[in-house]
Amino acid sequence: MANSNSTHIEISHIFRGTFVHSTPQTPLEVLEDALLGVDTDGKIAFIGKGAEIDKLSQTFGFSATNITQLAQHEFFMPGLVDTHIHASQYSYAGTALDMPLLQWLNTYTFPVESQFKDLEFANKVYSQVVRRTLRNGTTTACYHATIHTDASLLLAQITNELGQRALVGKVCMDRNNAVKHYKETCQESQEETCRFIAELLNKKYPRVKPVVTPRFAPSCTGALLGQLGAIAKNNNLHIQSHVSENVEEVKLVKELFPESESYTDVYHKYNLLTDKTVMAHGCYLTDEELTLFRETGASVSHCPNSNISLCSGILNVRKVLKHKVKLGLGTDVAGGYSASMLDAVRRALDSSKVLTIQDPEYDTLTFEEVFRLATLGGSQALSMDDQTGNFEVGKDFDALRVNVAAPGGPIDLIQTDEPKILLEKFLNLGDDRNITEVFVAGRKVVPFDKDQTN
Amino acid sequence: MANSNSTHIEISHIFRGTFVHSTPQTPLEVLEDALLGVDTDGKIAFIGKGAEIDKLSQTFGFSATNITQLAQHEFFMPGLVDTHIHASQYSYAGTALDMPLLQWLNTYTFPVESQFKDLEFANKVYSQVVRRTLRNGTTTACYHATIHTDASLLLAQITNELGQRALVGKVCMDRNNAVKHYKETCQESQEETCRFIAELLNKKYPRVKPVVTPRFAPSCTGALLGQLGAIAKNNNLHIQSHVSENVEEVKLVKELFPESESYTDVYHKYNLLTDKTVMAHGCYLTDEELTLFRETGASVSHCPNSNISLCSGILNVRKVLKHKVKLGLGTDVAGGYSASMLDAVRRALDSSKVLTIQDPEYDTLTFEEVFRLATLGGSQALSMDDQTGNFEVGKDFDALRVNVAAPGGPIDLIQTDEPKILLEKFLNLGDDRNITEVFVAGRKVVPFDKDQTN
Ligand SMILES: [Zn+2]
Ligand SMILES: [Zn+2]
Repeated sequence: MANSNSTHIEISHIFRGTFVHSTPQTPLEVLEDALLGVDTDGKIAFIGKGAEIDKLSQTFGFSATNITQLAQHEFFMPGLVDTHIHASQYSYAGTALDMPLLQWLNTYTFPVESQFKDLEFANKVYSQVVRRTLRNGTTTACYHATIHTDASLLLAQITNELGQRALVGKVCMDRNNAVKHYKETCQESQEETCRFIAELLNKKYPRVKPVVTPRFAPSCTGALLGQLGAIAKNNNLHIQSHVSENVEEVKLVKELFPESESYTDVYHKYNLLTDKTVMAHGCYLTDEELTLFRETGASVSHCPNSNISLCSGILNVRKVLKHKVKLGLGTDVAGGYSASMLDAVRRALDSSKVLTIQDPEYDTLTFEEVFRLATLGGSQALSMDDQTGNFEVGKDFDALRVNVAAPGGPIDLIQTDEPKILLEKFLNLGDDRNITEVFVAGRKVVPFDKDQTN
Repeated sequence: MANSNSTHIEISHIFRGTFVHSTPQTPLEVLEDALLGVDTDGKIAFIGKGAEIDKLSQTFGFSATNITQLAQHEFFMPGLVDTHIHASQYSYAGTALDMPLLQWLNTYTFPVESQFKDLEFANKVYSQVVRRTLRNGTTTACYHATIHTDASLLLAQITNELGQRALVGKVCMDRNNAVKHYKETCQESQEETCRFIAELLNKKYPRVKPVVTPRFAPSCTGALLGQLGAIAKNNNLHIQSHVSENVEEVKLVKELFPESESYTDVYHKYNLLTDKTVMAHGCYLTDEELTLFRETGASVSHCPNSNISLCSGILNVRKVLKHKVKLGLGTDVAGGYSASMLDAVRRALDSSKVLTIQDPEYDTLTFEEVFRLATLGGSQALSMDDQTGNFEVGKDFDALRVNVAAPGGPIDLIQTDEPKILLEKFLNLGDDRNITEVFVAGRKVVPFDKDQTN
């Protein structure tokens, strides 16, 4: 297939080799000896067969000498989409995993997040987390920052400079008695959110946008939630928060919002469930709540590492999918200890297998399905599947060049494996050493420019 | 503390810096600014405080200029002990995880293992797996090979050459109807086991020994099990096998050995439970069976990645420990997809947390406890804790030099963390890039010699 306006398009890169990706119909589609062209706007101009090279080069006016040929153990896959990550919590990733959610927030999270008033500290941590996630193939990330507007704007600036596609949220919370100073009044939160949105939109970053971010219902008064719902609506913005992560939290929400029918209903009441909303976790969502998700078009971000690490619960992904609720994967750093979406893929498979251990009738997710959740599913969950998520003509070229046999890397190959096996090995055993190049909208963002390398 | 024969000891290495290890009393002991001396036999000659340097250098006759000083983000920890790994299955590690144990064996495992008749293929795979595990810090491994004696001897030779401490088992199985040719008669199995043992012992490898290896009860007749029990007893050898991994298998054993009270009892009856026996999995062991383990001194190898990946079950480690049964961790490649013991540590924590999700009263394992299982626990499970497992004077120096801030590595440090936090980050986020040196009995086995580098 080729873009109908092809004659007006200027091609900047052409790749030939194996491409693997997902479609709404097929969790894994393998295109062997494919030819993919990227235009000067970073969009996929055509995808054809290697054998069609003559026809394609004529149509799109490129020369065969400009083609990048992948090696035998290489393939391209769509960039990974992290639908839920706390950039600010990256400073303690890999530690502090010994208590449940509410105590964990008060003991570890709020004290650390309060330090992001310091822009120098923020700059250090945010630069690290954006580089780290890019290196690990996260081409799109949906970030929680902290309550600090200027630090949150800095995170947006860093993602833009390093070339990651991102939604960035200044966290809103007018309820917190655990850590002094790490709280706003309802009015401050509203005003600073408006300032954050205005200043960020004013930067006109092509791929970094604000997302309205009430931390979660227990941290927000109904008044604040209502105002944030209105702000999102007036500006047609994305919304992110947390829902139904652990049992204690669900109970607390019931106490704090006795007038609401469910946790989900709290958000719905304040107009925070839209088709641009992504809610993390959802381990304990009822059928009624999932129906509300589907009806509003809101999505779930499944964060399996976090759910296990904080002993929160195990999401029944199959149930969410059966309700036709959009679902992506998230690392949830630092409740999840790993900033790599490859870890999210593995833990999603593990979680599904744990459900099968508990009930042998449970229909375990396949690695192909989880691959789709980590790419196309994430782009759907963020309502960005018109721009990214797979290799479709007209979408941006967000892609990972993967070398399963990268020298010095973590994978040993014994023989020549077919692409599906290579993908499976990469998903189970690979790491950033196998991701030799990362593209966002056609721009090569990994390896980093030399002057930026840490 | 210092060896009482210290005056006759010649010191070959001295290290100064942070050492972390476990003792039977304490899951994590941190020794800051410690001074550790290794003698020319590779044994730990002394461990003292940095401040005692003058006294120690006088006693042991070394000069302060010969000391290797660790940097701030570095520490030494004991080498990791993999108590259960199938070297032969490494060729398909990271794939083929979509069916339960018995079907998995027939579909994937037996066809691959039958290829190890080919010594060239065996050499390739075995070299890869020993290098890979060494790079990832496995200083001691308890290997299953295949039924092929010569290929199993080759595995022993490779581990000896590359310097890994190992038990190597030629697999015994006289029952298998799934894959033609991948089976022995009872007599062949017995004779080849005797040949394997005699030839391997005859090599006089200092740290590589044979282990009697009935695959598992369903693959062996009672006659074979009885002969293997006798062979082990006559030669005072280690024994390894599998027990109670999944529900279907437990049921099959009940059918095949109707005269035995339990799966464990089958092995016990044939004298295969001794204080040098390690049995993988044990997910469904009853209290009575665990009592039999304790009484005989047999140990359990907990292989959490495999148990999740094949949907086998989740071992209640706390219950095993309460029964005072020795317990180590295993990768169980390739039912477990990762050959790295760091993965086994993470999955052991996950499994424990899953049990806490199921029952909030469950006493979750701490990372310090799992660290102990991966080091000292493993050495106990293999009855090698007189030689390795922690930093005790008189034991061999089996150690990993860890740099948590290794350049180009997977961990970002924001600030100067205390050693306990550094260890936790390494266990959760580290990989072979952080393991800059590996020592087995005082010999530096990683990085590999240049001529061996792949
Ligand atoms: Zn979160
Ligand atoms: Zn095994």
